[in-house]
Amino acid sequence: MQGELSGGKVVVAGSEAGILAKGYGRKKDRLELSLEEAAFLFETGKISRIKEGEERELNLEEFLKRALDISPEFELRYLVYRDLKERGYVVQPGGVDFWLYPRGAKPGEKPARYFIRILSERGFLSLKELDALLILARNMRKEPIIAVVDEESDVTYYEVKEAKFEFVEKGEGKAEEIGKAKATLLGDRVVLWDTDLAKNLHINNFYGKLTKEKRLLLSLVEAAYLMKKNVLEIDTGQFIEYASSIESDFMDKYVVYEYLREKGLIIKTGFKFGSHFRVYKAANQKHSSYLIHVLPEEHVFSMPELARAVRLAHGVKKRMIFARTFNQRIRYVDVGRMKL
Amino acid sequence: MQGELSGGKVVVAGSEAGILAKGYGRKKDRLELSLEEAAFLFETGKISRIKEGEERELNLEEFLKRALDISPEFELRYLVYRDLKERGYVVQPGGVDFWLYPRGAKPGEKPARYFIRILSERGFLSLKELDALLILARNMRKEPIIAVVDEESDVTYYEVKEAKFEFVEKGEGKAEEIGKAKATLLGDRVVLWDTDLAKNLHINNFYGKLTKEKRLLLSLVEAAYLMKKNVLEIDTGQFIEYASSIESDFMDKYVVYEYLREKGLIIKTGFKFGSHFRVYKAANQKHSSYLIHVLPEEHVFSMPELARAVRLAHGVKKRMIFARTFNQRIRYVDVGRMKL
Repeated sequence: MQGELSGGKVVVAGSEAGILAKGYGRKKDRLELSLEEAAFLFETGKISRIKEGEERELNLEEFLKRALDISPEFELRYLVYRDLKERGYVVQPGGVDFWLYPRGAKPGEKPARYFIRILSERGFLSLKELDALLILARNMRKEPIIAVVDEESDVTYYEVKEAKFEFVEKGEGKAEEIGKAKATLLGDRVVLWDTDLAKNLHINNFYGKLTKEKRLLLSLVEAAYLMKKNVLEIDTGQFIEYASSIESDFMDKYVVYEYLREKGLIIKTGFKFGSHFRVYKAANQKHSSYLIHVLPEEHVFSMPELARAVRLAHGVKKRMIFARTFNQRIRYVDVGRMKL
Repeated sequence: MQGELSGGKVVVAGSEAGILAKGYGRKKDRLELSLEEAAFLFETGKISRIKEGEERELNLEEFLKRALDISPEFELRYLVYRDLKERGYVVQPGGVDFWLYPRGAKPGEKPARYFIRILSERGFLSLKELDALLILARNMRKEPIIAVVDEESDVTYYEVKEAKFEFVEKGEGKAEEIGKAKATLLGDRVVLWDTDLAKNLHINNFYGKLTKEKRLLLSLVEAAYLMKKNVLEIDTGQFIEYASSIESDFMDKYVVYEYLREKGLIIKTGFKFGSHFRVYKAANQKHSSYLIHVLPEEHVFSMPELARAVRLAHGVKKRMIFARTFNQRIRYVDVGRMKL
């Protein structure tokens, strides 16, 4: 089988039907292969020769260099294409970067299940782009995958989903029915001195840290929520303003905190895991199920930053969720490692 | 036992000898307790009353508020102090923040082993400060600990050390003795076409990624090192300049790469772990032993960023090492979680 490089495509003459059936190329008035498809078939010996123009025959090295001249993204795309083909997937250039079909599927017979966005280890991805991938996915009824090519030419795949929070129904002891007591603002936390209320809040709803002396040390978000629920009274005038002066992202964190507490989830600091929050499905759960990191709308991830967060969450069997806040509304994006 | 708050200290009258012997306070012409010591003794009932001036007696809440007025860092310091006391350590205010003695030791009899630097979850620590802690430690013959107080009022301890790299002696097959071949620069990586050299470099020294077709895909740092070692020839004039145009921190990464390769260590991308490099003690090691993240001299860590990096490394049984480069020299700082 021979091909001719022309107009950024490789046109194949002869025996087109066979390779078309195997999921390569597209049929217009003649069979055209993308640069990645052609490079793969050339490198694996299925295409024996590629010409450019009437005279010039390209060897593999020359073809790869030409492809890179034509498309600066070719090299990354080709590494991902090869990786997916070698894993037995049917993959077609198109969509965001590629369409991915289930193993053994034939394009045209079954729809693609995923679309793939390709990035280099050195690339950047904004939270807005992540969100845009989700909107696109919903409209196209596909699932998005991010493929990151590292320096070792290995590809790591990440699934991107709208976060779904599961929770166990809240037991007895709703905060608002417990009682009410005075508390003291002490620097960047709040101390509740009423030992009965302290024990109740901590044991039944996992608020704060209970000291040996049965005083409850509450974080600023916890205190703000309990004030709203009429459980705490703190004789500081402008609590929100004060808290915001200590934590510039206090309101963003608070909005997330309130949303999840209202659902019956238990939400505590995720500091030890490098995130703002860790979230339990209920107060009696031994391990938290989600890590949440609250980010400003305009945040841009470096790929190692994303890799580090997701890998850590994966290692401790939690979902990594990025909360993007804007105008006190929130969108939750769940990014996970994907074994293809 | 009673105390009097005066000049930012609590002066104790009566039975001083007993508490001095237990490691509290300092004896000048009279026994003085730091605010943290006094708060702890007051909260645990060892001090029954604290007065301020002749007339005014403070309850615990009032004392804590006054202490915070006097020292804005009091609350964080007190949380760390309490935590260490409850773990059975002898701790004394002083040094950077506190001195820490082995359990059961008496200050004055044995020297402190550690000094502690206290930060809040919301704090920042520059790479330069980390480095300064190491210099201080060397001069004082102590070991530095970073204590981070999180929103839940829990304290996480990190040990900071100068990184020590262990390595297994290099086997046969030094890169420079293997041969020499031409390679092609392809975008942000390099392809070596000579299949014998490719196998040799990959199998014996774990360079690059070997494709099914026995071509070797090398990263830019690997290629630069092998060019220097006279193993590769790449017909691109200014390779370093080209590489630096793709990766702005190429030279910093390269300096680290060369340093470790010259020691006989094997160094590969650490992307999957969110770091620049993972490092093996030898080519035949199954798991890498170190993660290295290369940072500019002026880098400033947020505490969650540090926590995430160290926790991840800990979870995969590697040491987290931050390489700080300046004028093409490098300092390696090893930060690890510490169970006290």
